[in-house]
Amino acid sequence: MEKKIITISREFGSGGRYIGRQIAAKLGIAFYDKDIILKTAEETGLSEEFIEKKGEYSPAKSIFSYAFVGRDSTGISLDDYLYTAQRKVILEIAEKGPCVIVGRCADYILRERTDCVHVFIHGDQRVKLERICALYQKTEAGALKLMKDTDKKRSINYRYNTDQEWGNAQNYTMTLNSSVLGYEKCARLIMEAAD
Amino acid sequence: MEKKIITISREFGSGGRYIGRQIAAKLGIAFYDKDIILKTAEETGLSEEFIEKKGEYSPAKSIFSYAFVGRDSTGISLDDYLYTAQRKVILEIAEKGPCVIVGRCADYILRERTDCVHVFIHGDQRVKLERICALYQKTEAGALKLMKDTDKKRSINYRYNTDQEWGNAQNYTMTLNSSVLGYEKCARLIMEAAD
Repeated sequence: MEKKIITISREFGSGGRYIGRQIAAKLGIAFYDKDIILKTAEETGLSEEFIEKKGEYSPAKSIFSYAFVGRDSTGISLDDYLYTAQRKVILEIAEKGPCVIVGRCADYILRERTDCVHVFIHGDQRVKLERICALYQKTEAGALKLMKDTDKKRSINYRYNTDQEWGNAQNYTMTLNSSVLGYEKCARLIMEAAD
Repeated sequence: MEKKIITISREFGSGGRYIGRQIAAKLGIAFYDKDIILKTAEETGLSEEFIEKKGEYSPAKSIFSYAFVGRDSTGISLDDYLYTAQRKVILEIAEKGPCVIVGRCADYILRERTDCVHVFIHGDQRVKLERICALYQKTEAGALKLMKDTDKKRSINYRYNTDQEWGNAQNYTMTLNSSVLGYEKCARLIMEAAD
């Protein structure tokens, strides 16, 4: 494989994590998602629950609250502390060998490396809602709220940490609509891109 | 081929038109680029030069000038007249059979069809500049100006006609960085997506 690392950013409900897991299994390479949480917990002393909640979803409020989010007496906010720790974990993971990394601004953190394929997976609302309803036992209204809230938080988190727009094609090597292409074909196309 | 129509939007210098032509040749299907200009000229009575200049690049000024661009006594601007005529030509082309269509908001115009793959090709500035310098005999400064001007006009034209952001992943089935992947691989990935 010419490109050793595949980062996957994804809209909630698009199947991006599932596609990433399929690729890692087929290629026999490491898959990092929750593992990043465990490693960051070790690094920071923060609880796994806190990192899971905030790692992709902070700052939790609007862009106007950035300056006021949990800033301690050192002038470093808890959000920035967590991002810096996650960044360190992702840089270390990338040094270890071929892998798939899901979420957590990994595309941006690893942007200087030339051995990565950075992917963004999105989808059509109807298809994503069906998946969310099935996976999380939600009503359609509940699924819609969860989807919008999650994507909004991911978008704000990405913009805050990268100064780039989440979902802008220029940030990624490849973006794919999983509702049109299907999960299996998305996995094949990503592996072909990395090959 | 499951998907019959491939639309290609592209950053200037990314090789998007070249990739589209390669795909059409390999698949033995029609390739529409300048042909759309000829057909639109027949439909509208406008000159080919005018359509080439304005077809992807109007309104030529800022978004604030929309309301004031060449609006005639019927209340329809020349820009809108040209877009409507190009739209009709693209809808007719799509009915004729498998093809590749470059530019002119074809992704948006054909968005209701389920037999299309909509692609956006972008690239890294350094690689695009090299291509533009070689193809158009420009200095680097000249190439940079031409690239920025052209992409800005395409972006404004797209936003004006579609109410969407040019280069936003969600508008396309697939987006690809041709500088990272190379033109040949981009062509293969698009054909695989359409297959």
